Amino acid sequence: MKRAIGIDLGGTAIKGTVMGEDGVCSHITRVPTEAQLGGARVLENILTLIDQLIAKSGLKPADFVGVGFGTPGFVDSDGTILGGAENLPGWKGTQVYAPIRERFGLKALGANDVTAVALAELKYGAGKGVNNIVCMALGTGLGGGIVTDGKLYKGTHGMAGEVGHITVEPDGYQCTCGRKGCVERYASATGIVHMALEFSNAASGGEITPFAEIARKNPDAVTSKMVYEYVAKSDAIALKVHNKMCSMLGRAVGALIDILSPDRIILGGGVMMAGDIIINTVKQHTKQHCWPAIFDRCEIVPAQLSEDAGVIGAASLALE
Amino acid sequence: MKRAIGIDLGGTAIKGTVMGEDGVCSHITRVPTEAQLGGARVLENILTLIDQLIAKSGLKPADFVGVGFGTPGFVDSDGTILGGAENLPGWKGTQVYAPIRERFGLKALGANDVTAVALAELKYGAGKGVNNIVCMALGTGLGGGIVTDGKLYKGTHGMAGEVGHITVEPDGYQCTCGRKGCVERYASATGIVHMALEFSNAASGGEITPFAEIARKNPDAVTSKMVYEYVAKSDAIALKVHNKMCSMLGRAVGALIDILSPDRIILGGGVMMAGDIIINTVKQHTKQHCWPAIFDRCEIVPAQLSEDAGVIGAASLALE
Repeated sequence: MKRAIGIDLGGTAIKGTVMGEDGVCSHITRVPTEAQLGGARVLENILTLIDQLIAKSGLKPADFVGVGFGTPGFVDSDGTILGGAENLPGWKGTQVYAPIRERFGLKALGANDVTAVALAELKYGAGKGVNNIVCMALGTGLGGGIVTDGKLYKGTHGMAGEVGHITVEPDGYQCTCGRKGCVERYASATGIVHMALEFSNAASGGEITPFAEIARKNPDAVTSKMVYEYVAKSDAIALKVHNKMCSMLGRAVGALIDILSPDRIILGGGVMMAGDIIINTVKQHTKQHCWPAIFDRCEIVPAQLSEDAGVIGAASLALE
Repeated sequence: MKRAIGIDLGGTAIKGTVMGEDGVCSHITRVPTEAQLGGARVLENILTLIDQLIAKSGLKPADFVGVGFGTPGFVDSDGTILGGAENLPGWKGTQVYAPIRERFGLKALGANDVTAVALAELKYGAGKGVNNIVCMALGTGLGGGIVTDGKLYKGTHGMAGEVGHITVEPDGYQCTCGRKGCVERYASATGIVHMALEFSNAASGGEITPFAEIARKNPDAVTSKMVYEYVAKSDAIALKVHNKMCSMLGRAVGALIDILSPDRIILGGGVMMAGDIIINTVKQHTKQHCWPAIFDRCEIVPAQLSEDAGVIGAASLALE
């Protein structure tokens, strides 16, 4: 059976695995990213992790078909990081393929981390059995990955799938990217917390719900998980946040459906732990923003893979 | 040299050609669509046109690799029209591949008409030399065609590229599709005329420009071409229409760039006869609605092929 090494680079930790074609992961290992020490150190930590994985597997480098890695931001076709990874200072400009080739004799293949997750869902998760999918990961931000005709679509420069910055509210919230009304400002943990605080602070008198009361007392403790605990209790402010989030996400999903007519839109990431309530509300809103015949042929479903989706997708890149 | 027949189905006429792999068209022929006589008659007229083209070429059916056709609306993978062609009553549900195979022994391959144009621009026009493009045709409506990794992307049900119904103004103009603020309501000949009349009628006193005066006197004579004649004269009302059109189109183009990171966005269709002024203004607006690093790697260019793009694209479908 063909085997590959999969590396998922995050802001805090680098996670790696050895994976076979059957999608079974073994020797899952984490090392600190040490992002604050710069790009060269991050790269060195990746190489150390690959070393550890090969040692743990008891195999030789030549027993692997290659190393796949997912990273925040963009990777060009030569393996140079093009940017879009603001939480990793100095990572932009790092060349990743050559050092892996030189040290292990293995070919490397990188992609945006959510793009890698899309590949994982296609092969082993919610995208099995279809050819055209879009994955959206609602985490701290909102990332995306696209599969067209059964293959990962990365665009010429590895930058496709930047769905978090689709403008959904032309005069909406200011985004960190410098523009306004990006869907990420609403459909992400950060966006949910921001709206929750805004709506709680704006409430007065009888509008102040139990959730708003807690949020006003201890704003730093508000999380998207907490918002959804109150959504489950039908708290009016929490529901307002939920509806705004789903309405804005529905606009972006509607555009994706009109453009790509995918078989499935797969929603994942930490925010989606809230479950079916998000899927159901997003469906209602999406329907208002795309062509009915295309909407009817597209399912909106939750991601199926666990937190290992990142390393599974990364290893899949190398196995492709 | 391989040869194919290309058929471009329009609301008024069906146009056909014989085309070689070199993209050279010969025997371009038109027959009336007779749309009002229903889908069976339209199909019969297509078959008659194929007959005529084979006869004119002096070749036998077996000398062609197949018949490609572009149609308004959607074609599924079996060659049945799925709808989206409101100007052709009874065309929905028509099976096109089987009659062509039975009468001529030729395989047929259909696609949305603008999707076919995208393929033509890729192979012989403004998309030459790159792998990822989006074509937008600003005609009566706004159609789209997508090429990913050098191949036409149609989606599982042949419905991808429905870019005209991307929502760009959530509470904007009512669209014929039943929703509001679709980009087609702004970035099409119909949309331009509608805005021109609205802005002209709303003007009063010193705001009434020469263009507004003519439009108010003879609203039925207003065309998008006329609007752009006054844009060239810096008429304030005509410029307001132009800017609104480009601003809305820029939002949709921005979403396309963020999602697909194409090498080129190609703008074609009758409205684009106005020339560079549209390209330049759309660029300015698009920049405000997508990620800068992706925008910087995407050109926004005019279509290069003439009115024959439809039949060239159709023939290319069969030659692929």
